[in-house]
Formats: sequence, C-alpha cells, structure tokens
Amino acid sequence: MNKCIYLDNAATTFPKPEAVYKKMDLVNRTLAVNAGRGSYKLAREATELIDNTKSKLLELINAKRNAYIAFTPSVTIALNQILQGIKYSNSSVVYVSPFEHNAVARTLNLLKKRHGFKLIELPLQSESLEMDLDKMKYMFSKDNPSCVCVTAVSNVTGYILPVKNIFKEAKKYQAITVLDAAQAMGLIPIDFKELEADFIAFAGHKTMYGPFGIGGVIMNKNATLDEVIVGGTGSDSLNLDMPQPYPGKLESASKNIVAVAGLNAALDEIDIDKSFKYEKELTNYLIDKLDKVLEVKLYLPKDRSKHISIVSFTVDRMSSENVGIILDEDFNIAVRTGYHCAPYIHKYLKDKSSLGTVRVGLGRFNNKSDIDEFIKAVNDIIAG
Amino acid sequence: MNKCIYLDNAATTFPKPEAVYKKMDLVNRTLAVNAGRGSYKLAREATELIDNTKSKLLELINAKRNAYIAFTPSVTIALNQILQGIKYSNSSVVYVSPFEHNAVARTLNLLKKRHGFKLIELPLQSESLEMDLDKMKYMFSKDNPSCVCVTAVSNVTGYILPVKNIFKEAKKYQAITVLDAAQAMGLIPIDFKELEADFIAFAGHKTMYGPFGIGGVIMNKNATLDEVIVGGTGSDSLNLDMPQPYPGKLESASKNIVAVAGLNAALDEIDIDKSFKYEKELTNYLIDKLDKVLEVKLYLPKDRSKHISIVSFTVDRMSSENVGIILDEDFNIAVRTGYHCAPYIHKYLKDKSSLGTVRVGLGRFNNKSDIDEFIKAVNDIIAG
Repeated sequence: MNKCIYLDNAATTFPKPEAVYKKMDLVNRTLAVNAGRGSYKLAREATELIDNTKSKLLELINAKRNAYIAFTPSVTIALNQILQGIKYSNSSVVYVSPFEHNAVARTLNLLKKRHGFKLIELPLQSESLEMDLDKMKYMFSKDNPSCVCVTAVSNVTGYILPVKNIFKEAKKYQAITVLDAAQAMGLIPIDFKELEADFIAFAGHKTMYGPFGIGGVIMNKNATLDEVIVGGTGSDSLNLDMPQPYPGKLESASKNIVAVAGLNAALDEIDIDKSFKYEKELTNYLIDKLDKVLEVKLYLPKDRSKHISIVSFTVDRMSSENVGIILDEDFNIAVRTGYHCAPYIHKYLKDKSSLGTVRVGLGRFNNKSDIDEFIKAVNDIIAG
Repeated sequence: MNKCIYLDNAATTFPKPEAVYKKMDLVNRTLAVNAGRGSYKLAREATELIDNTKSKLLELINAKRNAYIAFTPSVTIALNQILQGIKYSNSSVVYVSPFEHNAVARTLNLLKKRHGFKLIELPLQSESLEMDLDKMKYMFSKDNPSCVCVTAVSNVTGYILPVKNIFKEAKKYQAITVLDAAQAMGLIPIDFKELEADFIAFAGHKTMYGPFGIGGVIMNKNATLDEVIVGGTGSDSLNLDMPQPYPGKLESASKNIVAVAGLNAALDEIDIDKSFKYEKELTNYLIDKLDKVLEVKLYLPKDRSKHISIVSFTVDRMSSENVGIILDEDFNIAVRTGYHCAPYIHKYLKDKSSLGTVRVGLGRFNNKSDIDEFIKAVNDIIAG
C-alpha cells in the first residue's frame, strides 16, 4: 500500500522538522538531567536551554518584557492551570466562544459546578459561522464579563476568531482574558502586547511543530493565578506552599528537557509569513476542489480570509466515521472524524446526522499532490 | 576535564538504556501521532503501544486483573490527581510519612487549607531513622486514618519504608492507601495484590529508566477518584463531563506517545533482582568508604537491609551546597545538595546547619570506579 497521506495535523502535526528529531535525540543522550540553577554543569546547561526556549517564545509573540512563560506538559494542563487558577465567585460571568475545545469546555463546566458562576456562550451568526460582535457587545453590557475565554483558531472549522476585538471589548469591563492558542501559535501572528490577553495557553506539538510533552502558560506580568497543581520546585524546599514568584509558582515537577529541546529546535524553523501563505494556498486548493463535489457539504466561515488549514466536511448519506474508515482502509489517508472534542459548535454545524464531520488538518509538510489523491479518494468513495 | 561522573540518579536516572533512545527516536519519526482507537492505522498503532506499555507495567507489579493504569505526564501530576481526587471532609484524618516529597507535602498542605482535615506525620524513631510502627498503631487507634500516603523509598536517605505493614494497619480502618513509588518502581519489588494500596503513583524517568514526560496512576479497580484535570479524551466529545470509566477519566489530553515508547523500551530492560543486587552492592561499597572519612556524617536507616541507592551525607563545617559546588567545578562530579524537595524529614536529620545534605544517587550505570573517584574527591575537599 502507498505511504500514508497524513491529513490529521490539527490533532498533532506530523512529521516534525528533521532538526526537532535530531535535537531531541541529542539532548536525550547528552543532557536529559533534572534542570536546576544551583547545581552541576549539566543541570545548569539544561536550565539555559529552558530559558533560551522561553526567550524564543517571547520573541515569537512580541512579549519580551511584559510576560512570563511557565512550561507545562500540555496545553490541556496549561488551560486547567489558568482556568482553575482564576478566582471566581457565584456572581462571576464567564464567556466562552462556541468553538472551544473540551480542555476549556469541560474545565469550565467543572468550575461552574464548583463556584456556581454564570457560563455564557458568545454569539455566532449561524449563516456565516462567524462571531456576532455586535450581539456580543450587547450581551457584555447586560451581563458584564468577569472572564472571557476564546480559542484563536477553531479546531473544527479552521475559523480564525476576531480575538483582538473580543478581548478589547472584554477589557472595557476589566474581564480576565484567556486565549487558547493551541491551533495558532507559530501559524498565525499573535502579538501579546496588542492582544490584551492576560493568559495564553499553547501546545508545542501542534502548529509549532514541536513534540508532545511540552506546552505552556504565557501570562501578563500584571495577572495573578492561584496554584492548581503543586509539587517540588527544586527551590525553597522546606516551604509547604509553592514559592509565589511567577512563573515558578506554575512549574512544579521535573522539566521535560527533551521535549523542551524539541520545541527549541521547532522554534528555529518557524516562519509565520511563509507557513501561513503556504498553508493558505493549500487550504484554498483543497476547498476549491472539495466544493466542486456535489455530495460534499463544507463547514467554513463565510469570509475565507478568516480561515486556515482545517477543513471540516460531511458526505451526503454517509456517517463521517464511515468516510474516515474507507479513507484509511482503502486509500491509506489519515483524517479525523466525529466531534473533535469541541462540544458546543455542532448545534451550529447541524452535523449530528453525520455523527460529526470529517476533518482534514493540513500542515507544513502536505502538498498539492496529497490533496489531489485525497480528492480522488473522496470521489471514489461517493461513486461507491 | 574528565567526563562527568553522574551521581544524581535520584533526581533522574541518566543515561538511559540505548534501547530507550532508539525506540524514542524511531517512534518520534514514524508514530508520533495522536493515539485513538477509532481512527487510522497509525493512530491505532499508537494506541496499541500505549496498551502494551500498560500491560508490561501491570505485569511488573503483579496486578494483571485488579488494577487500572492511567498515564500522566509526571509523577507530580499523578500525585495531584490522586490526592486532589480523593473525597475529604473536615473530619478526615490524613497520615503521611515524614519522608514525603513536596509533590505530596505541598499538595496535602493545599488540601488541608481547602478541606480543614487533620494532617498527621507518621512517627519516626529518631535514632534509627526508621518508622516507629508500634507508635503508629497507637496513633491510628486514637485518630483513625481516613487516608495514608507514604513514599516507598525516601529520596533523601534511601530508606525502604515498611509500606506493607503501614498499609495493612491502615486498612484495618478502611483508610485509603496511597503509595508514591517514584523512587521504587523497577528497583524494588512491588506486589500490588499484596500491598493493599488503593493508588500507586509512579515516574517513568527515575528508577524505571524511562524518559521524562511519562508517569502514572495505578489504581485498584474498586477505588474511585474525582476528576482533577479535565479536557478532551477523543471520546464522548459532546459530554461536558469527563467520561466516567477508568482509566479514561484520568487521562485527558493527547498522549505523549514518544515518552510512552521510551518507557516501553525501558520496561524490557528491567530486571529487579539484578538491578537491586547490583545497586545494593554499589551502595554498600560507597557507604563503607564514606563511613571511614572522619569528617563525614551519614544519614542512613539503622537496618542497612532497608536501604538502597541513595546516600545523604554532610561534611563537618561545610555547607552542603559548597561541597556540591566543589565536586562539580573541581572534579566534574554531579550530586544534588540541599533539602531535596522533602520538607518534613530534616527535623530528624538535624542537617540545617549544613543547609541540607549532599545526596549521592547511584544508578544502574554507575560502577565502583565512579565511587572511588568520588571518595577521592571528598577526601581532597576535606584536606582543603
């Protein structure tokens, strides 16, 4: 059978740049010790690699002096640390976009039960599948937001949310602003200063092309968070409370220096202008071809300039799972099918009769020939 | 300068077996996708690797049918998920050993503030630095335990705690029993059935010789835990609660398949009888030599049969940090100094005038010549 055509880059990008593999193997073999400022050479060298990686990240989002970065093992843990670390009361009003992933949706559902706050979905125009900012403004004025949490890019429709506008409005009410950048960092420009985000959660293994095992919290130096996960920090060991200075307060446990090394190498390969342009072109190529297939329904934002890389669709009279199975078994093409861990959005997509969508996640290493083969397969499947 | 002599294996074992590096690099390059049962071939293959690794772990602790394993990114997160996931009331009585790490001590300190329960240290005989089981029994009878959490091996003194006896007594009161096996799995025999543990937390990167980024919760199938960290599970996506079946309830977020692969390879290399015998011999060789140095004070359990791999000491009239610095700078020997993230034990060790201990953590890849060089260095330092 042919080599697998991998179109599940929204789950995790694969493959990674060669430099990522090389750096991880090298660091695994030569530097995989427990980082620590005050100890021996190898441990200090590991610490330097961590600091260097954080510097590169701060540079990527133009946040050199006004943000802390805490590394976490995943964006899910980062989002738990952020959302569970915020102080709420039963009069808090928390807004989320309808595009949120379960790392946000389930966490806020848990916290809503715990604190009894109001949890409101931001409004969507169901025709365009884009945010309704006017309605949002009205809703904010009626129910002033305490916290607004949105994803930068939908992992289901590839919609690039108008985060800047949402956060600007939220900040009129001094709301805490949280960005889930899992599908965005390294792919679309994020300017921390401009964005008025208090917290950004990111994943190393998705649009940054780093490995599993590394994500993080980027936080405004004026923001605060209670501790959620606690443990050893290699510092102030006799203190039964977490050391309070950030980012250390959020960084218990040994650092995964091998994953950090992979992320470090991945950061060197990031060229947002180039990647965005390339993936945009590929995405449009895919959409144009898929749009011509009569039996296919696409789930896209109306304004195509607000869209990148992720294309969800359904096929008439077929379950999405079934389409995925045939793509895998007969064509060795890897896509994801179902609800994609995004619980809110499907009431707008009305895709439940297909049991969710077939999702194509394009990446830096895909090319037009992958798409041609994919389109051929879809047509074959429909022809039966 | 000579190659570094690495004696910090209690922080993380280093190096790892060659098979671990090879398997990680291979899986990184060929299988680093998002595992998922119902998707494409690569994702299913990743799931099989995860399941196979869990099977090997269950075999290691003789728990084939009566335990679940949930993978977590670290033992710290595993301990947070266990300890924060237990139901407490303000009348709960939680016992800990005085050897606990901050992954336990800080977590329980946080929970004590949250729930107002009673937190009691298990008694130690200050002469022998061993548990006082008779006194413990009396304490349990006075203040019946709701939960008992102990480490299997002290990360400061290398003491092997009498866990079986402690848990047996705890179970007379139906207490929940939690074992921190970070310094024990793969090095000392752990029999899940015999132990009467409800939960075991383990680290991949320490005595198992796996990589950073993988740890876990082993739980008795009769035990229950509330969710602590929540997020996507790739299943039941429209459900805003975590799916309740174990171990999935404890496993949100993408699995770190590269770290799992490393642990899988590491498990194949584990030979407890051989490792224990080898490390025991090395440990005794080190202790015998160090014990002859007049200016050195050792912190060991009296009964040397209850001890393995970790040797803490202080040098008269020198801070431990200073000893560590000279070992690093002048001899290229890596040890850890200070309080080792273990907040309770130092009142027994009375090592505060030295600002904690110098800790030698021996591992599978050390040999007698490492120890000879180390002893020579210690003597040189003392001679000035």
